[in-house]
Amino acid sequence: MARLVGSAIGRATTAILDADLKLAENVIAADEKVDDLQRDLEARAIALLARQQPVATDLRIVVTSLRMSADLERSGDLAQHVAKLARLRFPESAVPRDLHATILEMGQLAQRLMAKSAEVIITKDVDLALQLEQDDDAMDMLHRTLFQHLMDDRWKHGIETAVDVTLLGRYYERFADHAVSVAKRVVYLVTGEHADEIAPPTAVEGT
Amino acid sequence: MARLVGSAIGRATTAILDADLKLAENVIAADEKVDDLQRDLEARAIALLARQQPVATDLRIVVTSLRMSADLERSGDLAQHVAKLARLRFPESAVPRDLHATILEMGQLAQRLMAKSAEVIITKDVDLALQLEQDDDAMDMLHRTLFQHLMDDRWKHGIETAVDVTLLGRYYERFADHAVSVAKRVVYLVTGEHADEIAPPTAVEGT
Repeated sequence: MARLVGSAIGRATTAILDADLKLAENVIAADEKVDDLQRDLEARAIALLARQQPVATDLRIVVTSLRMSADLERSGDLAQHVAKLARLRFPESAVPRDLHATILEMGQLAQRLMAKSAEVIITKDVDLALQLEQDDDAMDMLHRTLFQHLMDDRWKHGIETAVDVTLLGRYYERFADHAVSVAKRVVYLVTGEHADEIAPPTAVEGT
Repeated sequence: MARLVGSAIGRATTAILDADLKLAENVIAADEKVDDLQRDLEARAIALLARQQPVATDLRIVVTSLRMSADLERSGDLAQHVAKLARLRFPESAVPRDLHATILEMGQLAQRLMAKSAEVIITKDVDLALQLEQDDDAMDMLHRTLFQHLMDDRWKHGIETAVDVTLLGRYYERFADHAVSVAKRVVYLVTGEHADEIAPPTAVEGT
């Protein structure tokens, strides 16, 4: 699921920047697969709880996977929202030229965040999980940049575009939040502590 | 949780329409209680799964309650977002006078939807649960009305207010979605079928 939604947000970003209708349709249709995976995960988690009656760590893993799948399903919806906006504004791009770089960065960062979360799920690497919080700060900064553009007196793209850009900013920010949330759930599984209670790793030179 | 977040969205709406800072602060602080309840619910659900190892319907109830609590926690965040916007724009109201009626209706409808969901949780009334979908259609209509105002050439409130109103609309719409989602989970519990697969009740005269 993490891989699928990471790919979806990347492609949705391309679709909205290039006003690529076919790619947008493709992202919209592909979300079905994520929803199917979530339903399948839920059914298997319940079957597991019923038949194997896991306790302690095993139980926490099952419950955590249920919670994670909700984050990932929602992330897929958000990628789909970006693609739907691309479709709505086709053949125009919903994003004015002078904001392309910022939206591209938000899209790429969202994709990287989700890729890291996928890695965290596989490796259970707590340090990597804690890095995501810092990446999320970068997303918040991009979001602020976007708002500064919107609030600038020289904004010349009108209300419709302001509305589109406001929603887009929100979609990326929420997507990033869900990616961070997935990683935090892994931290909780591994350490038994909520990520907020653990000091983030000190930045290493050159990183 | 449903009662708390239903009250929160109502008070947040008053706070933003009346530019009532004290009420806004109150809503923002009160969300802590919802978060505590969710953590408590999660801990108790896991303890229940571990100690009592429920199967069949009991198991589904526990898993559903976990999912519901996530919807309700998120609804609380959305009410908090409305209150934060009220605080950000104080002593102004974030909502221009000619949109007060629409935002008031959205706030009241959001509160009613959540009250119905609370009722559905207690009564397991499937018909009432299915009604929520129709209420949600009303919310979508209000959301469209809001967008029509925004897109109207006569919009004279500037970009900042357009951004605020766009986000507000999104908060109420998402809040309503979560309320519907809670009710749908009850339907699934009671009937074993997802709500989408059940025909909605025919509208009765006078309702």
